[in-house]
Amino acid sequence: MLNFCELVFSRTLRRKEPNMRFDNLLADRTSAMDVNVIREILKVVSQPGMISLAGGIPSPESFPMDIIPELASIVIDKYASMAFQYDPTEGFGPLREILVEYLRQKGIKSDKEEVLVASGSQGVLDAIGKILISKGDKVAVEAPTYLGALQAFTPYEPEYVRLDTDNDGLIPASLEKALDIGGIKFIYLVPTFQNPTGRTIPIERRREIAAIITKYSALLIEDDPYSSLRYRGTDIPTLKSMAPDNTVYVSTLSKVFAPGLRIGFCAAPELIRKWLVIVKQGTDLHSSTFNQALAAEYISGGFLARQMPKIINLYRPKQEAMLSALEKYFPPDFKWSRPEGGMFLWVEGPEGFNMENLNHKTMQKNVAFVPGKYFYTSCGEGIETMRLNYTMTDEETIDRAVRILAEVIEQER
Amino acid sequence: MLNFCELVFSRTLRRKEPNMRFDNLLADRTSAMDVNVIREILKVVSQPGMISLAGGIPSPESFPMDIIPELASIVIDKYASMAFQYDPTEGFGPLREILVEYLRQKGIKSDKEEVLVASGSQGVLDAIGKILISKGDKVAVEAPTYLGALQAFTPYEPEYVRLDTDNDGLIPASLEKALDIGGIKFIYLVPTFQNPTGRTIPIERRREIAAIITKYSALLIEDDPYSSLRYRGTDIPTLKSMAPDNTVYVSTLSKVFAPGLRIGFCAAPELIRKWLVIVKQGTDLHSSTFNQALAAEYISGGFLARQMPKIINLYRPKQEAMLSALEKYFPPDFKWSRPEGGMFLWVEGPEGFNMENLNHKTMQKNVAFVPGKYFYTSCGEGIETMRLNYTMTDEETIDRAVRILAEVIEQER
Repeated sequence: MLNFCELVFSRTLRRKEPNMRFDNLLADRTSAMDVNVIREILKVVSQPGMISLAGGIPSPESFPMDIIPELASIVIDKYASMAFQYDPTEGFGPLREILVEYLRQKGIKSDKEEVLVASGSQGVLDAIGKILISKGDKVAVEAPTYLGALQAFTPYEPEYVRLDTDNDGLIPASLEKALDIGGIKFIYLVPTFQNPTGRTIPIERRREIAAIITKYSALLIEDDPYSSLRYRGTDIPTLKSMAPDNTVYVSTLSKVFAPGLRIGFCAAPELIRKWLVIVKQGTDLHSSTFNQALAAEYISGGFLARQMPKIINLYRPKQEAMLSALEKYFPPDFKWSRPEGGMFLWVEGPEGFNMENLNHKTMQKNVAFVPGKYFYTSCGEGIETMRLNYTMTDEETIDRAVRILAEVIEQER
Repeated sequence: MLNFCELVFSRTLRRKEPNMRFDNLLADRTSAMDVNVIREILKVVSQPGMISLAGGIPSPESFPMDIIPELASIVIDKYASMAFQYDPTEGFGPLREILVEYLRQKGIKSDKEEVLVASGSQGVLDAIGKILISKGDKVAVEAPTYLGALQAFTPYEPEYVRLDTDNDGLIPASLEKALDIGGIKFIYLVPTFQNPTGRTIPIERRREIAAIITKYSALLIEDDPYSSLRYRGTDIPTLKSMAPDNTVYVSTLSKVFAPGLRIGFCAAPELIRKWLVIVKQGTDLHSSTFNQALAAEYISGGFLARQMPKIINLYRPKQEAMLSALEKYFPPDFKWSRPEGGMFLWVEGPEGFNMENLNHKTMQKNVAFVPGKYFYTSCGEGIETMRLNYTMTDEETIDRAVRILAEVIEQER
């Protein structure tokens, strides 16, 4: 498993698939695309007996399984064959309408024309890459950043510009410096409960970022899958609400409904959304009509509003269990994020501590996590970091897993 | 509405979006991507009062609406939350298994590893383009060919190599000539009941094509959405069954289940499918688990086998009505295909007859079709051709629509 940095250096070695039919047919872009980290993570998750703190997967207990038969029956009665027919690329009309209201509750003003549905937020990110990135174009991302976004953008062969972060997420001066140098096609951020760090950019810093983006007429992709998973504190306005004309707001129903339905969406400035629709036509024509209809009824029927407290009450104790266990077991020279929501904690060991080595050792004791280095685009960064997920594990097991991690850390030093 | 040929010539005029924010950010590839023909077709379909012979859309009467509540309930009982969770990129296990059996019935030997599920066959075609096409690479397509495939491939900036066809589809000598010149990344064909022509390549010619592909170690994409819609005659073996190691077989459940569920699939050689999975991860992670589970139960529960005769009995009289009406009303110097299945007929007028002009006139009388020129990649071809669809219209209306077409043709000459 290579990270992006190692991959770049291994390209000359790997240009062709040895001894396989059609190896001479692969497009140039495939040379940048062999990083299959999410896949490896999912494989680890599926090994029997493994306690996985590695995934980024919602708990199946968060899915509204008791409501789904009713939703299916409402959709079949209300839309009949329409819910199973080809549908416009932009998205299913009733879903786009209710998403306008959903966004309004998040402080984002939009209209139906502005809201597009995609096959997961991954579908939005792929389309963003396809319409904006020519080979060698610069895309600015946080260090560390969300791996799935890199997997969406990398096939279009961008060069990544690294933005500095601290405990409050993106450092505005780092963004301004990058924009000042110029040539940045767009900036990609996860401002709230970021994957992988769990960090949230505070409101003052958001205002600074919005001002910088507006000043430079830059385009921001604000990816916001987690803000509804808030266990403490109060909502922070989105960057989209502060710089609406410069921001593509991307979100998903994967964490508040069901990821298997593959419903993502975005609210985008006019030219961007025109092109998102054109490329989506070529990519998958449109997203599942039936699933979009289920999502429309889930939100408009008030089911989402009733489900959210259940999801929060499911995850809050898990997060608290992990924070307590870290406090209880981890050595004093290890630090971690204390987010008010989301699905991840970020742990930083002392300088030089190798979390990948640790992961190999802990997996022998049936505990897996993701070494943080995989979330960086630059070489040698994040060696001493780890991402911990708590949504798939019960509180008792979380406590045990963190204790095992701490024990192996002690043995290693 | 431009066809591909006109677009290429208009590129220098259209390079930038005038007076719109972010026009300077668009990737180079967008300059080849403004052909929005399917979209325009769908808009025509939706105008009230219009008799559309333009679409390529299955009749909603072909959907198994009476079965769907039962299917949903089977899936929820059998798979529970698993049907709503993230799932492997390759596809939902039980669907891949039953697709092996489905393919076996079509004479294609495969195993579960070889079969991948995608978001419609469009999803397969996009992924094929992404892994194989570098800018300027040659892709060989029939003249005329399926527009959706061009929409999938064009963003990756190929050059199209035109393959000659006649009433029996692709002419093998034309393929051999193209492969002999060399540099062809892959060949894209719809061998059975082709869109747009309805033509089917006969078995002898298929054997020739398979031999040529094997001889040149070429890669063939065999797109087969329509072969199950056979109203007369007997099945013809797929090219995949004749040249398995050189063929990616692509199909869909859109015409035999429901297009709104977006379930396509392929059976591909090893290296190709490895890369299809890697790119699909970046594009949409995986296709809807719930919909894949519905599809698995639809096939394995015997529902598909029971539905197929209903679909055939729905479409056969429509096709017969259109063939009779053409015979009855159309002038003797017009020719048309007489396919044994599928969704389309192809009409050729006398040389110089302009079908686009005709379409403008017939739309004023509320009858729409698709001028054939849009299905060509070369300039000036197909001016005198039209594609007629019969799946969305009842027999009486088909008769009336064809009569109106014939009347306007008479007025025009």
